[in-house]
Amino acid sequence: MTQHDDQMTRLQRLHAETILSVDSAARADLMQQAPCVLWFTGISAAGKSTVANLVDRELHRRGHHTYLLDGDKVRHGLSRDLGFTDTDRTENIRRVAEVAKLMLDSGLIVLVALISPFRSGREMARSLFEPSQFFEIHVDTPLEVAQQRDPKGLYRQANRGELHNVSGMDSPYEIPESPEVHIVTTELSRDECAQRVLDALDAARGA
Amino acid sequence: MTQHDDQMTRLQRLHAETILSVDSAARADLMQQAPCVLWFTGISAAGKSTVANLVDRELHRRGHHTYLLDGDKVRHGLSRDLGFTDTDRTENIRRVAEVAKLMLDSGLIVLVALISPFRSGREMARSLFEPSQFFEIHVDTPLEVAQQRDPKGLYRQANRGELHNVSGMDSPYEIPESPEVHIVTTELSRDECAQRVLDALDAARGA
Repeated sequence: MTQHDDQMTRLQRLHAETILSVDSAARADLMQQAPCVLWFTGISAAGKSTVANLVDRELHRRGHHTYLLDGDKVRHGLSRDLGFTDTDRTENIRRVAEVAKLMLDSGLIVLVALISPFRSGREMARSLFEPSQFFEIHVDTPLEVAQQRDPKGLYRQANRGELHNVSGMDSPYEIPESPEVHIVTTELSRDECAQRVLDALDAARGA
Repeated sequence: MTQHDDQMTRLQRLHAETILSVDSAARADLMQQAPCVLWFTGISAAGKSTVANLVDRELHRRGHHTYLLDGDKVRHGLSRDLGFTDTDRTENIRRVAEVAKLMLDSGLIVLVALISPFRSGREMARSLFEPSQFFEIHVDTPLEVAQQRDPKGLYRQANRGELHNVSGMDSPYEIPESPEVHIVTTELSRDECAQRVLDALDAARGA
């Protein structure tokens, strides 16, 4: 078989696959929406899941097909084998980003609520998507306030020296430099925080 | 805070979460479908992706929201860090099963096309789902026929000793004992194979 023949076979196969496969655009069309990723980052107890949940509810109410990938949910399944060292956190973020990419390819609007403390990890996630499809949302809460909320008791445990690698404590949280949305939870109600995200999404869509 | 107070807080939080979150049933309702997983297993070049693609096309044509998780696609993203040793294959199947679970939770009908050579791996995948939601489909092609097709040249490479851990060659493919669907690709056309899968799905749904 010559190189030319080999190329032709590959082209024919590609052509056959094009005919055979339901593609990304067809799935998004059927869902009647433009898929995107809303990536909520912030320290533990900043309010990422709370705000993401409210945005999810409103998008669902509008008839959008959505999915919220929550850090805790992923930790109990896909990333069950990972811990909280820098390496494991990076791998966790990589996996979540890859899952978000598959879900976006399926047509869904994907909400990710994940501390994602390192700039490099968030940039890696961003690099998987078209610029118009990725929204980084910094859910910004001062450490003192998050420590007072502390619904999971993480900060109390860290203060007692029982827990390590807590972002903002003995592990860094690198503040986003130019997120698409920046919400300060001590200045806005949680509904207002959600509204900011929805406004940014609507603005990007020209709504 | 007494233990009772602590429990109340937890209950209140659970209650708040119940109110706040869009749940699995609401997502499936909005998609107007019953999510499930169609798990295609078989040796390389058996025709898993071809049949899965045809089933996907027909489900899409009927207005269903679907996603085809193809082994090759996952290997280029989520499982990029894994090889083809027994341990890595098991981990690959675990990750794909966990992603399928998240996608099913989002309301989608998920098609998985993956060699998944070990019974234990397929049983692990099955165990993540309700019995009514999981369909194991054995795409059954004799090794000799698959070796003649060999679109990726895997068998030729294995025969030359250039590639190891090829299922059916130097690595076992454990034949499914009681799959929901068993299609023998040498006895049926690819359209007939796809129809068998659709029939099984319709029968299970009482259609």
